[in-house]
Amino acid sequence: MNGVERNDPEGAIAAAAKRCSNRGRWGPDDVLGTLNHLDAAKRVAGAALVRRGVSFSLAQSFDANGPQKGWRRRTNPVHTMLDTGVEAERGTQGFPHGLGGADDVVFMPLQASTQWDGLGHIFDHGTAYNGRRAGDVVTSEGDQVTGIETTAGLIAGRGVLLDVGRVCGTGGELPDGFAITVEHLEATIAAHGDTARVGRGDLVLVRTGRLSRARREGWGDYAGGDSPGLSFTTAEWLHGTDIAGIATDTWGVEVRPNEFDVAFQPLHQVAIPHIGLFLGEMWDLDALAADCAADGVHDFWLCAAPLPVTGAVGAPVAPIAVK
Amino acid sequence: MNGVERNDPEGAIAAAAKRCSNRGRWGPDDVLGTLNHLDAAKRVAGAALVRRGVSFSLAQSFDANGPQKGWRRRTNPVHTMLDTGVEAERGTQGFPHGLGGADDVVFMPLQASTQWDGLGHIFDHGTAYNGRRAGDVVTSEGDQVTGIETTAGLIAGRGVLLDVGRVCGTGGELPDGFAITVEHLEATIAAHGDTARVGRGDLVLVRTGRLSRARREGWGDYAGGDSPGLSFTTAEWLHGTDIAGIATDTWGVEVRPNEFDVAFQPLHQVAIPHIGLFLGEMWDLDALAADCAADGVHDFWLCAAPLPVTGAVGAPVAPIAVK
Amino acid sequence: MNGVERNDPEGAIAAAAKRCSNRGRWGPDDVLGTLNHLDAAKRVAGAALVRRGVSFSLAQSFDANGPQKGWRRRTNPVHTMLDTGVEAERGTQGFPHGLGGADDVVFMPLQASTQWDGLGHIFDHGTAYNGRRAGDVVTSEGDQVTGIETTAGLIAGRGVLLDVGRVCGTGGELPDGFAITVEHLEATIAAHGDTARVGRGDLVLVRTGRLSRARREGWGDYAGGDSPGLSFTTAEWLHGTDIAGIATDTWGVEVRPNEFDVAFQPLHQVAIPHIGLFLGEMWDLDALAADCAADGVHDFWLCAAPLPVTGAVGAPVAPIAVK
Amino acid sequence: MNGVERNDPEGAIAAAAKRCSNRGRWGPDDVLGTLNHLDAAKRVAGAALVRRGVSFSLAQSFDANGPQKGWRRRTNPVHTMLDTGVEAERGTQGFPHGLGGADDVVFMPLQASTQWDGLGHIFDHGTAYNGRRAGDVVTSEGDQVTGIETTAGLIAGRGVLLDVGRVCGTGGELPDGFAITVEHLEATIAAHGDTARVGRGDLVLVRTGRLSRARREGWGDYAGGDSPGLSFTTAEWLHGTDIAGIATDTWGVEVRPNEFDVAFQPLHQVAIPHIGLFLGEMWDLDALAADCAADGVHDFWLCAAPLPVTGAVGAPVAPIAVK
Repeated sequence: MNGVERNDPEGAIAAAAKRCSNRGRWGPDDVLGTLNHLDAAKRVAGAALVRRGVSFSLAQSFDANGPQKGWRRRTNPVHTMLDTGVEAERGTQGFPHGLGGADDVVFMPLQASTQWDGLGHIFDHGTAYNGRRAGDVVTSEGDQVTGIETTAGLIAGRGVLLDVGRVCGTGGELPDGFAITVEHLEATIAAHGDTARVGRGDLVLVRTGRLSRARREGWGDYAGGDSPGLSFTTAEWLHGTDIAGIATDTWGVEVRPNEFDVAFQPLHQVAIPHIGLFLGEMWDLDALAADCAADGVHDFWLCAAPLPVTGAVGAPVAPIAVK
Repeated sequence: MNGVERNDPEGAIAAAAKRCSNRGRWGPDDVLGTLNHLDAAKRVAGAALVRRGVSFSLAQSFDANGPQKGWRRRTNPVHTMLDTGVEAERGTQGFPHGLGGADDVVFMPLQASTQWDGLGHIFDHGTAYNGRRAGDVVTSEGDQVTGIETTAGLIAGRGVLLDVGRVCGTGGELPDGFAITVEHLEATIAAHGDTARVGRGDLVLVRTGRLSRARREGWGDYAGGDSPGLSFTTAEWLHGTDIAGIATDTWGVEVRPNEFDVAFQPLHQVAIPHIGLFLGEMWDLDALAADCAADGVHDFWLCAAPLPVTGAVGAPVAPIAVK
Repeated sequence: MNGVERNDPEGAIAAAAKRCSNRGRWGPDDVLGTLNHLDAAKRVAGAALVRRGVSFSLAQSFDANGPQKGWRRRTNPVHTMLDTGVEAERGTQGFPHGLGGADDVVFMPLQASTQWDGLGHIFDHGTAYNGRRAGDVVTSEGDQVTGIETTAGLIAGRGVLLDVGRVCGTGGELPDGFAITVEHLEATIAAHGDTARVGRGDLVLVRTGRLSRARREGWGDYAGGDSPGLSFTTAEWLHGTDIAGIATDTWGVEVRPNEFDVAFQPLHQVAIPHIGLFLGEMWDLDALAADCAADGVHDFWLCAAPLPVTGAVGAPVAPIAVK
Repeated sequence: MNGVERNDPEGAIAAAAKRCSNRGRWGPDDVLGTLNHLDAAKRVAGAALVRRGVSFSLAQSFDANGPQKGWRRRTNPVHTMLDTGVEAERGTQGFPHGLGGADDVVFMPLQASTQWDGLGHIFDHGTAYNGRRAGDVVTSEGDQVTGIETTAGLIAGRGVLLDVGRVCGTGGELPDGFAITVEHLEATIAAHGDTARVGRGDLVLVRTGRLSRARREGWGDYAGGDSPGLSFTTAEWLHGTDIAGIATDTWGVEVRPNEFDVAFQPLHQVAIPHIGLFLGEMWDLDALAADCAADGVHDFWLCAAPLPVTGAVGAPVAPIAVK
């Protein structure tokens, strides 16, 4: 970005927000934001991309071995059992005729692992998506307006993988602090060819290679630390392409450190409350990316319905891509 | 079932288990059970069912207003906030440049709402699917062998709705204690026509109308109480059709009270540890069923990936059906 | 109360708050409220009441069988195991030399069972104890000022049991809706005799018999329903006696239904943010009360330190009375 | 210990267990172990130690900033709000007449912070305290026999501080790996004088200075790492003194690394299932120790009732010492 903006993050954010705003675009009552772009025709087109029937899980693990280290009191998921097979085998569970059972519970921050940010996750100067007052939207009882359950049934469409790590990186990986610009995105699309074209209603997956590195070297500061990611300057591309959502293999979509001297996730501040864009974080794109590299086909049928916890401002998701 | 079996539930269960066993069918190391039936060709065929692009969420809500009343210490999900929009609006969150954020956590039994039973959920005389010792499979650290994460990426294919409530019930609903037999299933398929045929690798959804009633009258004993559901005598149909999974709009798939004088979920005892069948519970099939009744098409693309909590013996799922 | 006040709850609350305010009494930085009355001399006097060495737990159970039914998303505690003796006996835990272990976790609302309300639990017109702005005190990160941990080490002193149920009730129990007035309190003290006198720094325990009834008849609406309890008119007695805290065997200290036609816990609204009084709820006073009735001694050494969860606005406690 | 035992940990543990066993001492149904030593007379004597009325909390914090790093899936407590003062101040909570409220929940491993080990926490070769089969005692539903709730009302008596760190250490602190032997304990008692004598029914608090170091230097490996602590050789002293319980300012009471080449908490394996001894961990003894050093009085009233979570094998506690 230019030097003027770099020294005025608040001004730069405000300017980008103004240029990219979808507030009011789908009426004052809208709760879906860019999911409005993902219509039935797009779903028909997405399903038509299933040719070989091979499917890929894009979810990271949900367990105690995850990257969370306590930022914002986020822990890794804690999974405990209410009954076990050990007890079933011992025969002391009290069921008749040899029946045995196991049951379990989980405690987890909703953004502990692979997830979608809901539209109530981020605010700009006390306002939420569509210009609502933040305090009218997300209270202690959750998101009263744009809770993740409002997306139920919707997030299924054409997915496009942009493997920026493979195209622009070294050994398939971008280094921390690498800001992915529109130029990088366009170069990746060009390198991938026609199947990687991005248009209205698409669900775009950007692979940086950050997860590949964490898998190899250990989590380190994967959750909240330095990372490659989208440049703040991509805001207008995110808006102008009319995509329905974008997800990455990083903790926070954006490049870290952020591109302003003092800032915290400035692209979020534009993308969520102004564009109404759905951001996916901590997706595992490696197996899918290897397949796309092998067959040269970068689009596919993507189903990624978040767990519809009522009022959630973000939610875990187990995405499936089918080619 | 005949009178002899009725007086000998343990014998009847053992006989059905023997008749229906898939143990060893896919080798000693198999962890997928009937998901082996759902192959790439089935996914291609499933995707071809997307014609109009209309999608349906089959998930019930995940919140404090659910049906759980404490059976097996199951509570409804408890969703709490780590930060809210109220605080963002007040401007006291400490982020720079007007950024505000909300974050949340959930505590929930994994079978509190719409879910898949994993293969480690039920045992027969101390043995789990494929003949493994129950205590070798599910310990306090979770399912070490057939944890729900082993299904990641797989549960996407052709779905078929059998609206038994609409075909065999009154006002679209079956009464509590109504045991759905093979005859009822076949009659429903016949009534629905060709699109309702059931075959290898299908994901079968059986609507009883039990949820419709709960929605109208309140939960009552929806979770664990009396209910319409599959008869124990359907075990061989479940096995012989080579379906990949079956889900219902009830708490426990099976008819309650169970058909033996003293019993607890005897069909589970055959279906999970012997057939290796994936059972879905508490699905919301009403909107999909209305659409199927309207257009007469009862098959569709179904994507129903459970949240892959490592070692889970059951897991929440946000299924999407697309027609 | 008189008819005028009855028709003007907000005015009555404001008037009582004004008459009873301790705001500023211990300086602008005070976080302890009435615990200021409980000084070292009171602790010496309290300890001197130990004569026979017999001790009583005043805690109800903390488990899934408690009274919570979901009000304000309060569940009963859910206790799950991380390891069990069943597995230790099976010998598969992986510890050397025959060691086995069990470990556990709990999820619980802090006010699910026997508890102290902290000073951040209740506000009056947006203000907290000592006149602070409620939003400056209790945020999503907890009580930043008067969190229950500020009481650590302090709540040990002279306890006094006022068995109003036994003195004023039938069969030792007061009926629902019974408003305990100052007259009832004084009559109870008179009936009990000298050891029941109430003065500065005391921890007063009021038994209504409500828990005895729940124990006999089942929880019913114990948590949040009708109940005997303190009349709104006791506010000035609570203030004037300079007691350090007061606890009851009911869910909410106050009589329910409350004494105004439309109201919710009006005595709380005076007691916590204005008097700065510590309220204890759901205590089990029955065994202690039986002993006091038997030996005629109604005061004792009481240790009741809440679990010091940082920032908690209420906290579970396992009180011990020693006579 | 001698060289023979050092090379035969399993034999050494068995020999110590045999020498120190209290199994059967209080009958086959006993669930209290060494708490049997803490009788009414001891409580009377303990209360007589309250002279100045000054009280000390011996609890560490219960919050997200604790030492837990995931060992055995132990996290630090996660405390979240159900309602806040921010919302009360905003006036949108829906209560009448200006009432506002805050409420909260906690998720925590029961041994995340200051705690007592229950008698179901540790087993020896599949047996629990009093010779019961471990699998009969602690199941997935918790400790069915010796759950921590069986101690309700009992743990209040004479406390004795043995400040081994101050007497035997440097700058009041013992280094990691320092094994506190009987000689060190006796030397500390001798140095402290008469008030530090240890006898039947006492609750002994051993300060190593490990927490002081963590407070100064950060948690590091406080939870589960190297530490000063009791030598395995103190087992007979723990048994012979007839103390009711012993607590330390360390994570695990015992010296770490343990004194055998391959071992895991061998003293636990004798103390809990054989002596039936209550072990307290992660207590904060620093303020009390400073006071004891100042006035030379090392005994006091100690009330340390664990939170009686039904079936818990360990439980958090907010101990209060009063001198």
